[in-house]
Amino acid sequence: MNLAEAETEITVQFYDLDPMNVVWHGNYVKFAEEARCSLLDKIGYRYEEMRADGVMYPVAKMDMKFIKPAVFGQKLTVKTILEEIEPSLNIKYIIKDSATGETLFKANTMQICVDVLSGRSLYEAPEKFRKGIECLKDV
Amino acid sequence: MNLAEAETEITVQFYDLDPMNVVWHGNYVKFAEEARCSLLDKIGYRYEEMRADGVMYPVAKMDMKFIKPAVFGQKLTVKTILEEIEPSLNIKYIIKDSATGETLFKANTMQICVDVLSGRSLYEAPEKFRKGIECLKDV
Amino acid sequence: MNLAEAETEITVQFYDLDPMNVVWHGNYVKFAEEARCSLLDKIGYRYEEMRADGVMYPVAKMDMKFIKPAVFGQKLTVKTILEEIEPSLNIKYIIKDSATGETLFKANTMQICVDVLSGRSLYEAPEKFRKGIECLKDV
Amino acid sequence: MNLAEAETEITVQFYDLDPMNVVWHGNYVKFAEEARCSLLDKIGYRYEEMRADGVMYPVAKMDMKFIKPAVFGQKLTVKTILEEIEPSLNIKYIIKDSATGETLFKANTMQICVDVLSGRSLYEAPEKFRKGIECLKDV
Repeated sequence: MNLAEAETEITVQFYDLDPMNVVWHGNYVKFAEEARCSLLDKIGYRYEEMRADGVMYPVAKMDMKFIKPAVFGQKLTVKTILEEIEPSLNIKYIIKDSATGETLFKANTMQICVDVLSGRSLYEAPEKFRKGIECLKDV
Repeated sequence: MNLAEAETEITVQFYDLDPMNVVWHGNYVKFAEEARCSLLDKIGYRYEEMRADGVMYPVAKMDMKFIKPAVFGQKLTVKTILEEIEPSLNIKYIIKDSATGETLFKANTMQICVDVLSGRSLYEAPEKFRKGIECLKDV
Repeated sequence: MNLAEAETEITVQFYDLDPMNVVWHGNYVKFAEEARCSLLDKIGYRYEEMRADGVMYPVAKMDMKFIKPAVFGQKLTVKTILEEIEPSLNIKYIIKDSATGETLFKANTMQICVDVLSGRSLYEAPEKFRKGIECLKDV
Repeated sequence: MNLAEAETEITVQFYDLDPMNVVWHGNYVKFAEEARCSLLDKIGYRYEEMRADGVMYPVAKMDMKFIKPAVFGQKLTVKTILEEIEPSLNIKYIIKDSATGETLFKANTMQICVDVLSGRSLYEAPEKFRKGIECLKDV
């Protein structure tokens, strides 16, 4: 049961390409981050809210599968699925060609909630974060 | 039993940093790539040799663990361990602080050998690649 | 007298930021490139058309003025102005805050048309490029 | 009369390349920054000292000339020349092939000293910065 989902449109830029004329594999980390920010934006728990709560969410783990290379000008849809927020923030990413729906890339990230002042890990998500997810479900 | 190993020194640059004043997590993909190229250089099987053999080695999978963030000016040692070359090229990465030896990051990549002309995957490594590894062992 | 103009919307991403919490100055080169591609797209003379014509347009000069730093999530409008296509391709860039219209950045690029086979500079723009600009004016 | 000079060695990485198999033009901003940090390091006025003095030096202007493209694995020497520190910090950059001495790239940056608390521009360089340059000359 997923907690929340979002979709983000990305167009492959020239500066994303490598000598094989496809997106350099490291740039998918940027695509995933952009999509994660859209998901958090939809929930209403952005970097501003994290800062106000005195927490941050560093990425602790990331795994990526490169299924088919993306090319210049290609329109991509990054689907993000929020799988868990406690004890860690787990998000799944699927990148598809926006036109054909073909899957190009899959990834997962695991982020830890850290109390900025003490530096300690928190295993409960901030209340505003949980409420933001609840509000989305009610819609 | 590892097939080959290498070590690469990297100094964290200002442009590697994010607003938390630490290396942005996506930049570790660059550190891993730089270290992988050093390893391949040591073996004598670089992009030039791949091109001459008509093959390429796209990254098919990568997983990363971010253990402790690296900071501006920090000297890092990236150790690369070649674990397999057949049926896929599997490399392990460990980044340590060069001074203290503390582990900051671990990763694994899996690369597939692809015949450039046909686009087909090859499950045997090119002969020059295997010989390069043999030569290293004899040393 | 400008030959053509275009506008591109960009949203500042987290990975664009530096430790001062503003866009790292080198990332404006990416913003300019993305906007330049939109302009060329509008004219109908993209990388595909260049390749078909056997030419490329490497950037020979670029100057940038950083007037006010952009911040996370900010919506930017990059205006591009095509000033000349012969003997070189000269484009001006102005980045403004999309909401307030405040100017944040200005730049100019100069690109040389190069014949891919011979490596020689061409001082006349390809016909398709000139026609694409003419068509825009007629609209 | 130059105030100080430094030289930095850089090796072109795979992730620096674009589809033309040469260094993507925006990456020279990174090369210049790395070299500028080496120069400031030699003078003994790094980001730490700036922070301790409560100032920062944002880049206000940069111009670049791309003379000959750099390729994978190429060893580059970035020479930095400190031309002025008051009223602005002006640095010149020249990138040459380390082996042949051929010039590939030239640039200039102009940075403004800003008081972090007030946000005001300062037209006198901090004393530690001026002393660091004096010490270098005495050597």
